[in-house]
Amino acid sequence: MTSAERVAVVGTGLIGTSIAMAAVRAGEAVRGFDIDPAVLAEAAERSGLTPAATLGECVGGATLVFACTPIPELPGLVAEILRRSPEAVVSDVGSVKSHVMAEVSAAADAADLPRYVGGHPMGGSERSGPSHASASVLDGVVWVLTPGPGVPQASVDRLSTWIEKVGARPVPMEAERHDRLVAMVSHLPQVASTSLMGLAAAEEAGEPEILLLAAGGFRDLTRLAASSPHLWSDILLANGDAIVRAIDLYVERLNGLRSLIGARDAAEVERAFGEAKEARLSLAAKPQVKAGVAVLQVPVPDRPGVLAEVTAAMSEAGVNIEDLQIVHSPEGGRGTVHLTVAADAATDAEKALRDRWFEPLRLA
Amino acid sequence: MTSAERVAVVGTGLIGTSIAMAAVRAGEAVRGFDIDPAVLAEAAERSGLTPAATLGECVGGATLVFACTPIPELPGLVAEILRRSPEAVVSDVGSVKSHVMAEVSAAADAADLPRYVGGHPMGGSERSGPSHASASVLDGVVWVLTPGPGVPQASVDRLSTWIEKVGARPVPMEAERHDRLVAMVSHLPQVASTSLMGLAAAEEAGEPEILLLAAGGFRDLTRLAASSPHLWSDILLANGDAIVRAIDLYVERLNGLRSLIGARDAAEVERAFGEAKEARLSLAAKPQVKAGVAVLQVPVPDRPGVLAEVTAAMSEAGVNIEDLQIVHSPEGGRGTVHLTVAADAATDAEKALRDRWFEPLRLA
Repeated sequence: MTSAERVAVVGTGLIGTSIAMAAVRAGEAVRGFDIDPAVLAEAAERSGLTPAATLGECVGGATLVFACTPIPELPGLVAEILRRSPEAVVSDVGSVKSHVMAEVSAAADAADLPRYVGGHPMGGSERSGPSHASASVLDGVVWVLTPGPGVPQASVDRLSTWIEKVGARPVPMEAERHDRLVAMVSHLPQVASTSLMGLAAAEEAGEPEILLLAAGGFRDLTRLAASSPHLWSDILLANGDAIVRAIDLYVERLNGLRSLIGARDAAEVERAFGEAKEARLSLAAKPQVKAGVAVLQVPVPDRPGVLAEVTAAMSEAGVNIEDLQIVHSPEGGRGTVHLTVAADAATDAEKALRDRWFEPLRLA
Repeated sequence: MTSAERVAVVGTGLIGTSIAMAAVRAGEAVRGFDIDPAVLAEAAERSGLTPAATLGECVGGATLVFACTPIPELPGLVAEILRRSPEAVVSDVGSVKSHVMAEVSAAADAADLPRYVGGHPMGGSERSGPSHASASVLDGVVWVLTPGPGVPQASVDRLSTWIEKVGARPVPMEAERHDRLVAMVSHLPQVASTSLMGLAAAEEAGEPEILLLAAGGFRDLTRLAASSPHLWSDILLANGDAIVRAIDLYVERLNGLRSLIGARDAAEVERAFGEAKEARLSLAAKPQVKAGVAVLQVPVPDRPGVLAEVTAAMSEAGVNIEDLQIVHSPEGGRGTVHLTVAADAATDAEKALRDRWFEPLRLA
């Protein structure tokens, strides 16, 4: 059943098109616009959204509009959408909120602001463009909503209802708090990874053999460093204050360990490592951000063919494997495979594994 | 054919037993000793080494001895082995070299020192104990040798010949250089990971929802934080000076990015990220430390059953999968699976994949 909302998406890249796909899957109709006609055509073909020839045609008469462009374009665009669709609640999907909201406040007519609700669906991807869009990008993900002062609760509720309908999980939160938390667990890891890779590359100039000695841990820590410089420059500058604070806290902690190592204080070094280990092991037992998936921990013997058995069991049960990791327990024991599957397929997956004498443990 | 060497291994944990297994596989006989009789018995059963009742019985008459205990026990043990086996070249497997060599110099008779050659086989594991030992731990890995002054080249050559015979790759290097390089690409990543996890755990105390917002990048960066605190305390303290330098350089680089972000200098932030991205992508195209393995990059469509096809192809070809990663290219494209297999099985693996219409690309 189509809801009472008339929904428009402006900017049909990865997130915009994924929103359209999730909406169409839920039986909702969506109108879309992009300044690049080729991108819009691909998005329309992929998602089934109705392409509009102009921004005005896209948002005129809409009751819910999502602005899905890069951060620098969001404020002006949101202000314009608010003017052109006087009945609509307008949201955006920028991964930084305080900055975008302040700029929207400056750019928009004050009378329009109670119709604007900041948002951040946390199911992005390091990929971009409509060709990589998928309804599953939003499946069960946390979709933070950051209404400013003066926004009626009814508007937030309407937005939340629609978000739940398309499969995500609305989480209202103050914008400043959102920015502070993502600075720590999303933006700081990116800075830490890029800094480590940059440092090793600088050392390599004088020591070409250094990467001969770089093992798996180094690769884990530097994987994020391959992300888009342009995208990250936008994010880091827009969330600059929170990131500067996060870097300062991180440097403080690194210098704390440095002092303990410099003083050869074995007991305190071991204590600091023990605390971090405990926190990491408890994190491993927690659900992923994607609440729509389940992680099955499967102990396996180390012999040829065992992964083929695990994956064949999933294939026969019709279960799609979202992710698979081969994990060696730091405490020893046999090898362990972490299988990530859709939450509603987890019971089937567990049964198929038990039928083949595996002993899966559901983590989340 | 058995070589002219009479080889002894003291300390039969993961590395000591793995050395014995690689030696036995190459047709060499090995004598072993461990202060824990149960550990020694398990190592003997697993590897085929000949257990000795005492240290003296183990190393008496040996011509090559490997000391394979934790770092704090190495110097005294090496000094004693040098005294008890006057014909032998003695090496150790500690992951830090300058510190161990200085302590050996202090503990041993000066006349014995030219028979001591520091070493570090870089194929360890986060696991421990003889039950996790395997000859493959040493297959094709870089085995750094750090002879001190006064060690005859002939002794280094004998050691190198034997190391090659059991399947690893001897790389002579100055001890200080080894320590400086591993501080950067092995020890610093550990410190960076532990610090990030410790910081997030501290924040979580006041913000229980913070980990709800933590996605895959955070998990990648903090995986190492689950390593053994005791082991790492030993390593970090033994390589303290090099690690303090590495942390200082890392903090300097973090603060550099912090300044650029604080000044909202988009062009310079983007340039720093671009350099790191380029370095990371070039690293991804380089061989892993384990020269004995090959990595196949396999583009795959995103549909149920595709991993089952890949793994079944390996199983039917009799190829053991050493590691498997599902990777999303930051540049877009379809999903990609990275398959790690033994180097001598790579051609079979490629053929089996092509027979099923996959298009594997061999990275290393």
